[in-house]
Amino acid sequence: MKKYYAEILGTFALVFCGTGAIIINQESGGAVTHPGIALTFGLIVMVMIYALGPISGAHLNPAVTIAFTIARRFPVKEVLPYILSQGAGAFAASLTLKLLFDKNEFLGATIPAGTVLQSFVLEIILTFLLMLVIINIAMGSKEQGMFAGLAIGSTVLLEAMFAGPICGASMNPIRSISPAVVSGHTEHLWLYIVAPTLGAALAIFVWQMIKTEVSTT
Amino acid sequence: MKKYYAEILGTFALVFCGTGAIIINQESGGAVTHPGIALTFGLIVMVMIYALGPISGAHLNPAVTIAFTIARRFPVKEVLPYILSQGAGAFAASLTLKLLFDKNEFLGATIPAGTVLQSFVLEIILTFLLMLVIINIAMGSKEQGMFAGLAIGSTVLLEAMFAGPICGASMNPIRSISPAVVSGHTEHLWLYIVAPTLGAALAIFVWQMIKTEVSTT
Amino acid sequence: MKKYYAEILGTFALVFCGTGAIIINQESGGAVTHPGIALTFGLIVMVMIYALGPISGAHLNPAVTIAFTIARRFPVKEVLPYILSQGAGAFAASLTLKLLFDKNEFLGATIPAGTVLQSFVLEIILTFLLMLVIINIAMGSKEQGMFAGLAIGSTVLLEAMFAGPICGASMNPIRSISPAVVSGHTEHLWLYIVAPTLGAALAIFVWQMIKTEVSTT
Amino acid sequence: MKKYYAEILGTFALVFCGTGAIIINQESGGAVTHPGIALTFGLIVMVMIYALGPISGAHLNPAVTIAFTIARRFPVKEVLPYILSQGAGAFAASLTLKLLFDKNEFLGATIPAGTVLQSFVLEIILTFLLMLVIINIAMGSKEQGMFAGLAIGSTVLLEAMFAGPICGASMNPIRSISPAVVSGHTEHLWLYIVAPTLGAALAIFVWQMIKTEVSTT
Repeated sequence: MKKYYAEILGTFALVFCGTGAIIINQESGGAVTHPGIALTFGLIVMVMIYALGPISGAHLNPAVTIAFTIARRFPVKEVLPYILSQGAGAFAASLTLKLLFDKNEFLGATIPAGTVLQSFVLEIILTFLLMLVIINIAMGSKEQGMFAGLAIGSTVLLEAMFAGPICGASMNPIRSISPAVVSGHTEHLWLYIVAPTLGAALAIFVWQMIKTEVSTT
Repeated sequence: MKKYYAEILGTFALVFCGTGAIIINQESGGAVTHPGIALTFGLIVMVMIYALGPISGAHLNPAVTIAFTIARRFPVKEVLPYILSQGAGAFAASLTLKLLFDKNEFLGATIPAGTVLQSFVLEIILTFLLMLVIINIAMGSKEQGMFAGLAIGSTVLLEAMFAGPICGASMNPIRSISPAVVSGHTEHLWLYIVAPTLGAALAIFVWQMIKTEVSTT
Repeated sequence: MKKYYAEILGTFALVFCGTGAIIINQESGGAVTHPGIALTFGLIVMVMIYALGPISGAHLNPAVTIAFTIARRFPVKEVLPYILSQGAGAFAASLTLKLLFDKNEFLGATIPAGTVLQSFVLEIILTFLLMLVIINIAMGSKEQGMFAGLAIGSTVLLEAMFAGPICGASMNPIRSISPAVVSGHTEHLWLYIVAPTLGAALAIFVWQMIKTEVSTT
Repeated sequence: MKKYYAEILGTFALVFCGTGAIIINQESGGAVTHPGIALTFGLIVMVMIYALGPISGAHLNPAVTIAFTIARRFPVKEVLPYILSQGAGAFAASLTLKLLFDKNEFLGATIPAGTVLQSFVLEIILTFLLMLVIINIAMGSKEQGMFAGLAIGSTVLLEAMFAGPICGASMNPIRSISPAVVSGHTEHLWLYIVAPTLGAALAIFVWQMIKTEVSTT
């Protein structure tokens, strides 16, 4: 059970801090700033990997769990419990934020700022690159090891920084589902479920071509 | 005595640099910026952990000291000397800042920007997550080990970044007490004593459920 | 073949994220900010070194490949395949960005903001310092080792931060060639081919004077 | 001779990038931003420690060299050659910046923004805390070891971030001397020679009280 608790806690932290940054930026008239939001998302992923990586692997993301399974590094029977745990943590976070900031309309939901096609392609590429970093650095299906937190968190940080203004830089179905459902803004939600999952799966196929037997640092 | 000196020095550095950033931001017309203040708080915690962690554990925070004690990782008889040391360092910092910037009204005291309930809940959650990271990464009651500074400092950084505009992101009773007392703005001080202590204690009870025998990196 | 795929992927990521940050900053009315662009360039280099360093060395830059060859740490016969791989990745990135943002005029091409001489001298010095860091930290011709990603990525970050507003802080011929060719703005391209290559080569000659037998961390 | 070359190169890099950030921020109408300047100073110190620490110790600062000597970790007969090397690098950087940006008035010289007393006290405390971090983390008189670059660079970053708008956050006599002399603005130069040297020396006396036999990570 420990690993499920860890996924619940970690995904709660990710959604609470990350979408909380978007909400508080709106509520405070822009005090957090866009770079501050990107930094919040990247660093909460980084610190959760250091804190919880040894327990559950700190996936915090159904697309990552599915991709590890495709790579045959994660057991199929654990996929559903992991995704349910991630969902529990994410919804707990969005509901807490709803209680705290009940007048906020979107609760940090991801909404395409340009065309739907732009955001769809961007989310595929962003999650592809994120999963490529994860699979090259992770040990087995665990996001642990010395520089895993730094490298994976920094990938989230930089991708949220440059692509956030167009597509929201979700890279994570559950990070998009919980604020969308709790706020009632589910109009583009399919995009943020399909594209990150495709991108993460694609990374596994490409990684098969470049993986070496030499263990990475 | 060395560990008490280390706690005095470290808490002095935390309060001097962190609340100094808030004060100088006000005195300079916003030059530091809110993200710059959050970065100052996070990085001073990080560097003090690398510099002083091997000596005193670099708690720099009564809520952390109490939580380690609840977790049975820190001796009860050391709690009071540690908290007094932290208080000495914090007050020395606030008094120095008062001498340097005598016209500044708040001296970096934490004041809720929204409702008191919002700040109370936020401070509990922020300190809960901070202590969860600390207890999972620390060795014994010492905030040391390779990535402890990076992970714990980054947690402070990101929490100050996203939640600072609402609750001030104290997470630390003594960081709030010294500027409040020295500036005379003690009106919301109880909140910043109670909520962080509750949040840090809560983290210990949750951690009991997920802790593993496997040592973390 | 694995190392060529790795160079293609890594250079794609560098140009897609880095020049993508410049493009999205323009398209979103400045949401990314200049510091956000610099952070994107630095962190994508850092994470690619952690992810791909053990496979190809993560050069991602013809000037770096040539400099390693001058230093006799990289085989001459691999230079052309590496540069072609880097070119394939960079052009794939610029073409993808062209499809996504077809009205953007420069696609992140580097254009001198001051005089040509200023940018020429700056690019030599920037690439000199970057290569000096790389050659002192790299193991053989591979940008790997524990702190290589952090140190090399941070060098790119800081140089893009301070010098970007004048010269664009390319430090990399292929990062400049692909957006210039795809956008049709090749007017200053010679500068960004010649100066970084000169700067990186110069670093090797200076490094010969200071290198020690003691291995760096 | 290698260590002198390393000090020349490292101090050149520090002054070129750090004061270059101030100059380019002015020349570009504020594009770098104050947080961007602080980040440039912090990261150039960090990367030079990783690149040159194993060769010369990467002092790059006469106050640090003198403080190491007081701590009996650095030979007296090396003090003058080290300071001359640092001076050579710093003046080479300021002269290059003068050639590149000949209309810039201050060339990044440090000028107190408030009272002289404020800046004097701030520079003492800033350099005290910086040297306290250095002496606790350094091995012998060398700024090397795994986290030395990260911790020392981050100290410079955070101190430049919060205190820069008041005192310029020099912490380093030679970083202040070269732009002051080359630009002709030597009016407050004594402050930036005396205060950092006092602060660094003070750190050694305090460190004597807290140092342990246990080696730090």
